[in-house]
Amino acid sequence: MSEWQKIDGGITAPKGYKASGITAGLKPSGAPDLALIISDVEAIAAGVFTTSQVRAACVDYCRQKLEAKPSVRAILCNSGQANAGTGQQGWEDAQDSAKALAAALNIDPDSILLASTGVIGKRIKMEELIAAIPQLVSEVSENGGTAAAGAIMTTDLVMKSIALETQFGDRPVRIGGIAKGSGMIHPNMATMLAFVTCDAAVSPPLWQEMLTRAANRSFNQITVDGDTSTNDTLIALANGQSRTPAITGPGPDADKLEAMLTAVCEHLAKAIARDGEGATCLIEVQVTGAPTEAAAAMVAKTIVGSSLLKAAIFGCDPNWGRIAAAAGRAGVRFDQDKLEISLGEFQLMKNGQPLAFDAAAASNYLKLAKTAAYLQEDTVLIKVKIGDEPGSSKAWGCDLSYDYVKINAEYTT
Amino acid sequence: MSEWQKIDGGITAPKGYKASGITAGLKPSGAPDLALIISDVEAIAAGVFTTSQVRAACVDYCRQKLEAKPSVRAILCNSGQANAGTGQQGWEDAQDSAKALAAALNIDPDSILLASTGVIGKRIKMEELIAAIPQLVSEVSENGGTAAAGAIMTTDLVMKSIALETQFGDRPVRIGGIAKGSGMIHPNMATMLAFVTCDAAVSPPLWQEMLTRAANRSFNQITVDGDTSTNDTLIALANGQSRTPAITGPGPDADKLEAMLTAVCEHLAKAIARDGEGATCLIEVQVTGAPTEAAAAMVAKTIVGSSLLKAAIFGCDPNWGRIAAAAGRAGVRFDQDKLEISLGEFQLMKNGQPLAFDAAAASNYLKLAKTAAYLQEDTVLIKVKIGDEPGSSKAWGCDLSYDYVKINAEYTT
Repeated sequence: MSEWQKIDGGITAPKGYKASGITAGLKPSGAPDLALIISDVEAIAAGVFTTSQVRAACVDYCRQKLEAKPSVRAILCNSGQANAGTGQQGWEDAQDSAKALAAALNIDPDSILLASTGVIGKRIKMEELIAAIPQLVSEVSENGGTAAAGAIMTTDLVMKSIALETQFGDRPVRIGGIAKGSGMIHPNMATMLAFVTCDAAVSPPLWQEMLTRAANRSFNQITVDGDTSTNDTLIALANGQSRTPAITGPGPDADKLEAMLTAVCEHLAKAIARDGEGATCLIEVQVTGAPTEAAAAMVAKTIVGSSLLKAAIFGCDPNWGRIAAAAGRAGVRFDQDKLEISLGEFQLMKNGQPLAFDAAAASNYLKLAKTAAYLQEDTVLIKVKIGDEPGSSKAWGCDLSYDYVKINAEYTT
Repeated sequence: MSEWQKIDGGITAPKGYKASGITAGLKPSGAPDLALIISDVEAIAAGVFTTSQVRAACVDYCRQKLEAKPSVRAILCNSGQANAGTGQQGWEDAQDSAKALAAALNIDPDSILLASTGVIGKRIKMEELIAAIPQLVSEVSENGGTAAAGAIMTTDLVMKSIALETQFGDRPVRIGGIAKGSGMIHPNMATMLAFVTCDAAVSPPLWQEMLTRAANRSFNQITVDGDTSTNDTLIALANGQSRTPAITGPGPDADKLEAMLTAVCEHLAKAIARDGEGATCLIEVQVTGAPTEAAAAMVAKTIVGSSLLKAAIFGCDPNWGRIAAAAGRAGVRFDQDKLEISLGEFQLMKNGQPLAFDAAAASNYLKLAKTAAYLQEDTVLIKVKIGDEPGSSKAWGCDLSYDYVKINAEYTT
C-alpha cells in the first residue's frame, strides 16, 4: 500500500550525508553530548522552531541564518546545556560555536545551523565544546547516523531514528530522521529536537511549506504534558544528491515526497510521545467529521492532552465521559447529539449518548494494548466523530502515571 | 482597607433568601444531595455557564430561561447525577424537576433555575428527587445556607461558603456564595458549581456584566487540571431586599458592588483550587507588565496550569526555568529580556536571566508555605513581570501530586 519502505541508516541513509556523535564532556554523566550532521554539498534547509517567547540563542540564530540564506552544509547540536536564558553571552557562545566548526570544516559559518538541549539558564561549556570539534569532525562517516542520534538524547529511554526510501523513476529517494523527546528526568529539560535529511532536490519555499505541513501533522500533534520548550527545533535538509529531477512546484512528485516526509515526522513524533516521562503507553486519538483538518486537529490534541483522560488510561479505565468532556472544551463548535466515541473496537458513545458496553472487556483492551504498546507494538486507539464534515486529524500522547509526578517532583534545584 | 467585612450565613446572609439541603437518595453514599435556594421575591438573575460543546440538560435549560426572563425565584441543584449525555430524556427530566418544585412552591416553573453535578451519562434519579421535594421545601430556612453548601458537594473535602457585608449609606448590602469544586474521586465528576446571592437592587444587564467580569477574574482564572466540565455553572441573584437605591449604570455604587461580588467569587475560586484533587497547596500566580489584563490573565493561567511547574511545586523545587518556559508559551508576545520571576521573597530571574539565589532557602519557603497552605493560611506565591505595561492579573491552581494520579487512575468503570 505505502509507496515507500523502511531502510537502515537513519539520517545518513540519504545520499551525500555524513554524521558523528561523541562525548565532549558537556554532560556530567559522560554520555555522548555533541552531534554533527554534514551534507556533502549545500543543502536546501527548512526549519520549524518553538513559538515560545522565551527562546534559546540557537533558535534565534537558526531563524536569522535561514532568513538570510535557505541552504546550509551542517547542523551542530549539543546536549547538556540549553543556552536559553543566557542573554548576550549565550548569543556570543552560539556564534563562537559556529565559527569554530566552520574553521574545522573549512566552510562558511553562515552554512551552519545550531541546536541545543539541556538545562535552561546554563551556558554551553564552551571550552569543552571547542576542544571536541576536531574529534567530532574527524569521526564523521556515512554510517554515523546512529552516533548522532545517540548524542542528541538527554533522558530519552529509547533512541529515535528512521529512514524511508521510495523510487522516483528508476532512482531511489531517501529521507532519514532522528529526534530527541522530553524524557525530563533532569529539571528544565523539555526540548524536542528533530533533524531530517533528504536527498531529493526541492526548491526552498516548497521544502519549507512541506516541512511546515508535516510538522503540523506530526510534531505539533503530540503532547506529553502541554509544555513547549525554549529550544524546540525541527530542521530538514534536502541536498539533491539523489540526482532525481528537481521538484519546484505542486504535483504528483511533490505530493509523494511530502507524504514520505510526513511519514518520517510522524514516526519520530510518535516515538517521542511513546517515550514521554513516566509513560506506559502511546495513545492515538483520531478525530473525524470536523469542518476542517485544523478543527479536527484541535479536538484530537485537546483529548490526548487531558490530564483526566491520561490518568484514566493509566488506570485502564474506559472512561468515555472524560473523552466527551475534553472534546467539548476544545474550542470547536459541534452538535453534541452527533458525538461518537470508540476505544479500540468498543463503541462507547453514539449520537451523543452512552452505549452499553462491556466495561471489563474494554478495560482489558486497555491492559492488553498498553502491554503491547510498552513493547512498541501497539497503541491505545481512541476514535471520535464530531459530525458529518470531511475534516480529520490525529494526535498522539501518553498516559499520566505516578512516575511522571515522581520524575518531575523529586528533583530539588 | 477593604470596604467590606466577612459575616456568617453564606448564601442566606443577604436579606430575603432561604435555603435547604437534604438527602434525597440520589447518591449511593447517603450524603446530602439536593439543595434549594429561594428568594422571597423575584430576583434579578445572571449566569455564566460552561463553554463546552458537550453540555448537561440543566445548562441549556438555564440559558433558555435567562434569555426569556432575567429574574427567578429559586435554584434547584442535585448532586449524584450530572444529567449530561442524556439526550431528550435528560431534557424532559430537567423540565419535570422544575415543574415539581414550582408546584410545591406555588410559583411559575419559569422562575426556577437548575444545576446538576455527578456522573456524566446518568439520568437524575427522578423518583427519588420528586419524592424529596416536599421535605426540601419544608426545610427551607434563613439559616439554611450551610445545609445547601453541604448538599452540592460531591467529593470536595472542604465546604465552600462565604458572605460579605458593606454599607450603602446607612444600610447594609450583603453578598453570599457557595461553591463546589472538582474533588473528582469518582469518575466523570469535574463540575464547578457556584451560587451567589445578593440583596442589592441592580438592573439585569449591569448585573450580568458584573458577574461576567467577576467570573473572568476568579473562576475563569483557576485550574486544577485544565478540564472544563459539561455542567460548570455560576448563577448570581440580586433581589433588592436591602432596600438600597437601585443601581442601574456605571458609577461608584456599581464599582463598590462589583468589587464585593468579585471578592466573593475570588474567595470561592481559591477555595476550589486549594481543594483540587490531591492538592497539597494553593498556588497564586501574579502577572504584571502585560499590555492588557487579558494578556496578563493568559500568562498567569498558563503558568499555574503547567504540569511541569505543578510537579516541581509538589517536590518543593524552586524551578524558575519551568515558570519562564510556561510564560513563554502562553501566546502573549513579550520581550524575554524583560522577564522577572519571584517565588515568595526570592527573586529568581531578572532581565531574562537567572539570578543567583539560595536554592535551599527557596525550597524551604515552598515547604513552609505548603504546610501553611494546607492549613488554609498561606499560599505559594509566584510573581512574574513580563514588561512595563499596565496589564495585570492573577490565577490560582494547585500542585500535581501522586494522589492526583491515584484519584484519577484507580477507578475502573
